[in-house]
Amino acid sequence: MAIITLTTDFGWSDYYVGAMKGIIYQISPSSTVVDITHEIPPCNVLAGALVLREIWRAFPPRTIHVGVIDPGVGTDRPIILAKYANQFFLVPDNGCITMIHQMYQPEQVNLVMNENLFCRPVLPTFHARDIFAPVAAHLAKGLDADMVGPRTEMLRMLELPRPKDSERGTLLGRVIHVDRFGNLVSNIDPEWLNRHTARGGGVNVRLGDLEIGPIRKTFADVPVGKPVAYIGSAGLLEIAINQGRADQTFHAGLDSEIEVR
Amino acid sequence: MAIITLTTDFGWSDYYVGAMKGIIYQISPSSTVVDITHEIPPCNVLAGALVLREIWRAFPPRTIHVGVIDPGVGTDRPIILAKYANQFFLVPDNGCITMIHQMYQPEQVNLVMNENLFCRPVLPTFHARDIFAPVAAHLAKGLDADMVGPRTEMLRMLELPRPKDSERGTLLGRVIHVDRFGNLVSNIDPEWLNRHTARGGGVNVRLGDLEIGPIRKTFADVPVGKPVAYIGSAGLLEIAINQGRADQTFHAGLDSEIEVR
Amino acid sequence: MAIITLTTDFGWSDYYVGAMKGIIYQISPSSTVVDITHEIPPCNVLAGALVLREIWRAFPPRTIHVGVIDPGVGTDRPIILAKYANQFFLVPDNGCITMIHQMYQPEQVNLVMNENLFCRPVLPTFHARDIFAPVAAHLAKGLDADMVGPRTEMLRMLELPRPKDSERGTLLGRVIHVDRFGNLVSNIDPEWLNRHTARGGGVNVRLGDLEIGPIRKTFADVPVGKPVAYIGSAGLLEIAINQGRADQTFHAGLDSEIEVR
Repeated sequence: MAIITLTTDFGWSDYYVGAMKGIIYQISPSSTVVDITHEIPPCNVLAGALVLREIWRAFPPRTIHVGVIDPGVGTDRPIILAKYANQFFLVPDNGCITMIHQMYQPEQVNLVMNENLFCRPVLPTFHARDIFAPVAAHLAKGLDADMVGPRTEMLRMLELPRPKDSERGTLLGRVIHVDRFGNLVSNIDPEWLNRHTARGGGVNVRLGDLEIGPIRKTFADVPVGKPVAYIGSAGLLEIAINQGRADQTFHAGLDSEIEVR
Repeated sequence: MAIITLTTDFGWSDYYVGAMKGIIYQISPSSTVVDITHEIPPCNVLAGALVLREIWRAFPPRTIHVGVIDPGVGTDRPIILAKYANQFFLVPDNGCITMIHQMYQPEQVNLVMNENLFCRPVLPTFHARDIFAPVAAHLAKGLDADMVGPRTEMLRMLELPRPKDSERGTLLGRVIHVDRFGNLVSNIDPEWLNRHTARGGGVNVRLGDLEIGPIRKTFADVPVGKPVAYIGSAGLLEIAINQGRADQTFHAGLDSEIEVR
Repeated sequence: MAIITLTTDFGWSDYYVGAMKGIIYQISPSSTVVDITHEIPPCNVLAGALVLREIWRAFPPRTIHVGVIDPGVGTDRPIILAKYANQFFLVPDNGCITMIHQMYQPEQVNLVMNENLFCRPVLPTFHARDIFAPVAAHLAKGLDADMVGPRTEMLRMLELPRPKDSERGTLLGRVIHVDRFGNLVSNIDPEWLNRHTARGGGVNVRLGDLEIGPIRKTFADVPVGKPVAYIGSAGLLEIAINQGRADQTFHAGLDSEIEVR
């Protein structure tokens, strides 16, 4: 029985997540349902895309990842079932899968249109319960992906800020996520870094005007309270303060500029 | 094996919820335990009643819904096991089930008094672990409801604010919940609306002095940033801002007045 | 199949907890994974120790309790598997188990060193996913504790504030935790209280200069809004306000002094 993961912006204070689970267990009682996070900031599709980019690596093949960050709920925006790296992503077609798509070829994408799978009547404000949950449950029970609707090749992607080479030969990136610990996650991955160093660039990191130092292995490579740059668990360059909060200390956050030179 | 759902005001920062689950799994290892929410504001029985009103619809028959918003823990307030719509509600008798009770006849109500089912000694401050959890687990394993204690017919109900007809022919309600997205959930349900329109009333909604517009199907029926009224997933009239926060923008919250005319 | 519990400072807003669960289910698909809390304040080992002290009582023998409050991740601080009271604790050797250790003799302690059990390459910033999760999963499947690495007897302990007898014959303790409800949990346990009363001490409680009153059974033994002292669910003396917040009302928190006389 496949695993179903849930990533939403619903928070934990309402009954929305619970309602999704109830429907899933009604249809597929022996599913394993795993909450990834429900604390995606409301309507922040990029934050959802970043979680979906990371999470599937930890899960077994054919896991069904449900991502509901869906400001367009109730409009005619499509819902898609996309297969990447032998895992399924059931998401609104609003760019949620942009970051997976950058790394993998989609193996198959279907539009979710088979109303026989839905809980009816479908409430226009709660597709999570009435469409996403039952479709995921049927897939977990073994439903073939082609049964959810016709194949498509049109996918909507987010315009993501990409790193760039500066005129002075440095690599410029941006903070795209601040995590629970106040660590600043950038959009610079090892591929960009390798290209930069292959051209003779260095590996010293700056946050705005502030010198952070060379890229190290982990926080604890610097003394407590000191800033540090390293490749984080998402495979992206991060800036942290060992046992401190980089976001607050440096007044940095989303979109802050990071430079490697 | 029945599902057990948990709705409490315990939050996620302490070990209280974990302790409940440990006891449940000890007694009934193959139970499925579903967290609905633990973020009910402390001691806010009405907020708990609203969640319990909604959540059971998504779950299969004979699910056991445990609701612990229990400011009277350790006093002689009874604990009850109430069956509505073929589902069980295990709650303190403090009004938690008021909103279900308004919609359904109770099929059976038992006082929870069989101490053989409890974890003993029962700690007066932690009935959730020592009474609610083990009783729910025994029920999930198939214990007959009449084994928990004698039947009763006395149930304590909350005095809920009800909509009313104004002298000028409009329908007046109140905000009874603000959700994660800042949406304002009122106490006006379709039954009240139908009665209002049957008498010639309109369907234009106001929040205090502010014109929201006609009742629509979903947020996305108005442009981003605009206010909208619609029947939400709880079957109640709600006011939102499409991709915004109605609570902050309109300085509205619990008890704010909503008018339909 | 054993239960695995998770206690971390990861919060719910990132994918970190989800990644741990993915690895666990890959290795041991029929495990039951229970979130205790992920809201331990970042790097607060004492807060983690307090949760681990309490939580195991509710779980069946041989449950595997994973505790990741690990500011030293990526350094050479050891990871240990310690068995107390027929339960396993998989934690960094940074004092997480101090409070269990005060109550029980360790039955066995192993250093976690068998790299064949890890997800490789091990990322220096994410031992939770790459070491803790897979080792816990293998243990849940029945792996013998001695397979994780050699036995050890050296364990690092926290210096905990302990109660003390004052010169004027009273018992002095401190607040070591403030819970979700604003209740003040002290470091005074019944053993200290019994010793104090055996010497003729009283059971009247003060918080700083404020008279709270005698030790009672539960909050509800005083009127709503009044302060109360009682032995809480952790087996420690607590101060609360019935249906109020003692922390805010009394401007009290971690380290506030509590006196019994």
